[in-house]
Amino acid sequence: MATSGSVPITPALKDELDIVIPTIRNLDFLEMWRPFFQPYHLIIVQDGDPTRTIKVPEGFDYELYNRNDINRILGPKASCISFKDSACRCFGYMVSKKKYIYTIDDDCFVAKDPSGKEINALEQHIKNLLCPSTPFFFNTLYDPYREGADFVRGYPFSLREGAKTAVSHGLWLNIPDYDAPTQMVKPLERNTRYVDAVMTVPKGTLFPMCGMNLAFDRELIGPAMYFGLMGDGQPIGRYDDMWAGWCMKVICDHLGLGVKTGLPYIWHSKASNPFVNLKKEYNGIFWQEEIIPFFQAATLSKDHDTVQKCYIELAKQVKEKLGKIDGYFVKLADAMVTWIEAWDEQNPSSASATTATTATNGPAKK
Amino acid sequence: MATSGSVPITPALKDELDIVIPTIRNLDFLEMWRPFFQPYHLIIVQDGDPTRTIKVPEGFDYELYNRNDINRILGPKASCISFKDSACRCFGYMVSKKKYIYTIDDDCFVAKDPSGKEINALEQHIKNLLCPSTPFFFNTLYDPYREGADFVRGYPFSLREGAKTAVSHGLWLNIPDYDAPTQMVKPLERNTRYVDAVMTVPKGTLFPMCGMNLAFDRELIGPAMYFGLMGDGQPIGRYDDMWAGWCMKVICDHLGLGVKTGLPYIWHSKASNPFVNLKKEYNGIFWQEEIIPFFQAATLSKDHDTVQKCYIELAKQVKEKLGKIDGYFVKLADAMVTWIEAWDEQNPSSASATTATTATNGPAKK
Repeated sequence: MATSGSVPITPALKDELDIVIPTIRNLDFLEMWRPFFQPYHLIIVQDGDPTRTIKVPEGFDYELYNRNDINRILGPKASCISFKDSACRCFGYMVSKKKYIYTIDDDCFVAKDPSGKEINALEQHIKNLLCPSTPFFFNTLYDPYREGADFVRGYPFSLREGAKTAVSHGLWLNIPDYDAPTQMVKPLERNTRYVDAVMTVPKGTLFPMCGMNLAFDRELIGPAMYFGLMGDGQPIGRYDDMWAGWCMKVICDHLGLGVKTGLPYIWHSKASNPFVNLKKEYNGIFWQEEIIPFFQAATLSKDHDTVQKCYIELAKQVKEKLGKIDGYFVKLADAMVTWIEAWDEQNPSSASATTATTATNGPAKK
Repeated sequence: MATSGSVPITPALKDELDIVIPTIRNLDFLEMWRPFFQPYHLIIVQDGDPTRTIKVPEGFDYELYNRNDINRILGPKASCISFKDSACRCFGYMVSKKKYIYTIDDDCFVAKDPSGKEINALEQHIKNLLCPSTPFFFNTLYDPYREGADFVRGYPFSLREGAKTAVSHGLWLNIPDYDAPTQMVKPLERNTRYVDAVMTVPKGTLFPMCGMNLAFDRELIGPAMYFGLMGDGQPIGRYDDMWAGWCMKVICDHLGLGVKTGLPYIWHSKASNPFVNLKKEYNGIFWQEEIIPFFQAATLSKDHDTVQKCYIELAKQVKEKLGKIDGYFVKLADAMVTWIEAWDEQNPSSASATTATTATNGPAKK
C-alpha cells in the first residue's frame, strides 16, 4: 500500500495502465497526485484552442494530444471526437496501448478517509478491476471478495466465482456530481459521507456513470467507452459520461461482465457554474426520459459477441428509435459507427481480440 | 432521536408497529433494548415445548403465543406454521393488528456506530420504511432522500418520486450471517465494517433476505412474508427468511414496491453451530441453485393486483416447477395457500385492502 508522500516500490499495473486527463489548463493539480500517479504514463487530451500551451509539472511521463493532433491522427474520422467538451477524453482511450485506463478530471484532488489518511484512488480502482464482480445476485455485505467479508447465507454457490470486472466507478467527497437544477436548489450541499463500500451494479440495472473518477479494462470494454458528441456545435453537453455509461452497461450485461461503484473517493474541489450547466443539460434532461427506457429495453443477440459488434448494433437501434426524438441522435448514431471504425484502425488487433464471454462467464439470466 | 438510557418522548409509530420475536428462552436480551423497545408492543412467538415458561423482563407490553395457542387460533390451518424453527415468527406477523412489523432474533444486541453511539435500530428501520425507495434506477450516492444526499446528475427526473418502501433489511456487526460451509471455513471471521449506507435493491434483482433484523410494512407486503415449512418434520431449515425474501421481492417488483438494505446494524452475539446448520441447510444448498433461476424467471400478470393474488399464483408456479425437484415443494406450495387462507381469516379486511399500485406507483418497465 502506498503511503502519502512516498512512492510505492512496485506500483500495481505500472506498465499496464494509462491515466487519461482531459484539460484546458495547466495541470498543477497533478502535484497533489504525484506520490500516486508519477509511476504511471499519462495521456493528456487538450481541449479547445490547440495553440495554447498546457504546462505539466516536471517528472511526469506523458503524451499530449491537442485538436490538431486528433485531426491529423484520425483524419475525417476525427469528427466523432467532441470539441470544447471534456468528452474529448475518449480519444485518449482509443490511442492508449495499455490494458487499463484510469481517467480523472483536473479539478479532482486527493481525498482523505475517516482516519485522515490520504486515499490512493488509483490503487483502489486497480483492486476493484482485478477482483471479480457479482452482477447476477446481490450480496448484502457488499463486496464479498474484500478482506473481512464474504458471500452471505443464501447466496448460490454456483455464482460465487462472479464475473470479470470491466468498470470501476469511483465517487466524490465535497462537491457532489449534481445536475444543474439540483445545484441551483442546493448550492451549499457538500458530500461529507464516506461510505466504506464497493458494490456491483446488478445485471439489468442502469446507473448514472460519472467520468470524473473512473477506471476500466480497455481490453474488455474499451470500444464501448465512447463519450459521444457533446459541446461545440452540439445541442447537448454534460451527458458524455452518461451516454457511455448506458451503452457500456447494456453491453456488459449482455457479455456477462461486471461494473462496480463505490470506493475510491476523490475530493471534488469546485462546483461548475449551474447556469452554464443548465444550458448544456436542458435537452438531455428531456431526452433522458426516453433514452433510459430505450436502454432498459435494448436487446442484443448471441451473434453480438464482441464489444464492437454490440456497439454497432446499439448504434443502429439508436438511429431507429431515438432518431425520432431529434435529428441529433441520427448524427450521434453515425458518430458511434465512426468511433468504432477509428478504434479498430488505431487498435488493429482488438477487433477480434475483444471476444465475448457470454457463454462461459455467467448465466444468461435476466 | 433516542439516546442511550433514555426513552424518547414520542417514539415514532408507537401505536402502529409491533415487534415480533421468536424464541425458546427467557428474553433477557430485551434489557439492552429497553430504551428503544419499551414503548412498543411485543408479539412473542414461543417455539418448541409449550409447557415451558418464557420470562419477559418487567415493564414490557407483550402478548405471547406458544404452539398450543397457534393450534387453537388457526385450527387445521396451523399446519402452515413451522415448529421447532424460528420460521414460526411469521405467525406473529399474521396476528398483529398494526401497519408495521419489526422482527429481531433474541441473540441480537445493540450495536455501536463508529463514534461509539448506541444504534437505535428500530428508529432507523422506521426512517427507511417512511421514506421512498428507488428500485427503477440506481443512485450512486446511495439513499437520495437522506440528509446531505440527493439524486446525482443523469438520474431521470420522472423517477425521483421513487416507490413506496415495503421492506427494510438491516445488517449485523460481529457475527456475519454466513452459511454453514462459510462458517466452517472462516470460524473466526467477524464483521467489523460499518458501511454508512441505505440502498434500494434494484427492481429485477434478488437478494438473500435475513430475518434477524428486519422491518416491513404489513399493509403493503405482509401476506408475502411467509417463512415457509422449516424445522421439525421438514427436510430443510435456515431457508425460512430466504424463501420469504425471494417471494416478497418478486411480488414487490411486480407491484412497484421498494426494498431497502443496509443500515441499521445490530450486534449479532453468537455464531450458531455450523455442524447443526449444515444438517439443516444441505438440501437448501442444492435446491437454491434451481430455486433462484425459478424466481428470476417467475412472472405475474396484471390480474395479480394484490399481494394475496400474487402469492397464490407463485404457489401455483412453485408446485408446477419446483415440485419436480422434490415432493417437499408440493407440500410447501400447499402450505403457501393455507397461509394466505389463514392470513385472510385473521385479517378479514386485508384481502381487499392490500390493493396493488402497479398502475400508478412506478413504471411498468423491465
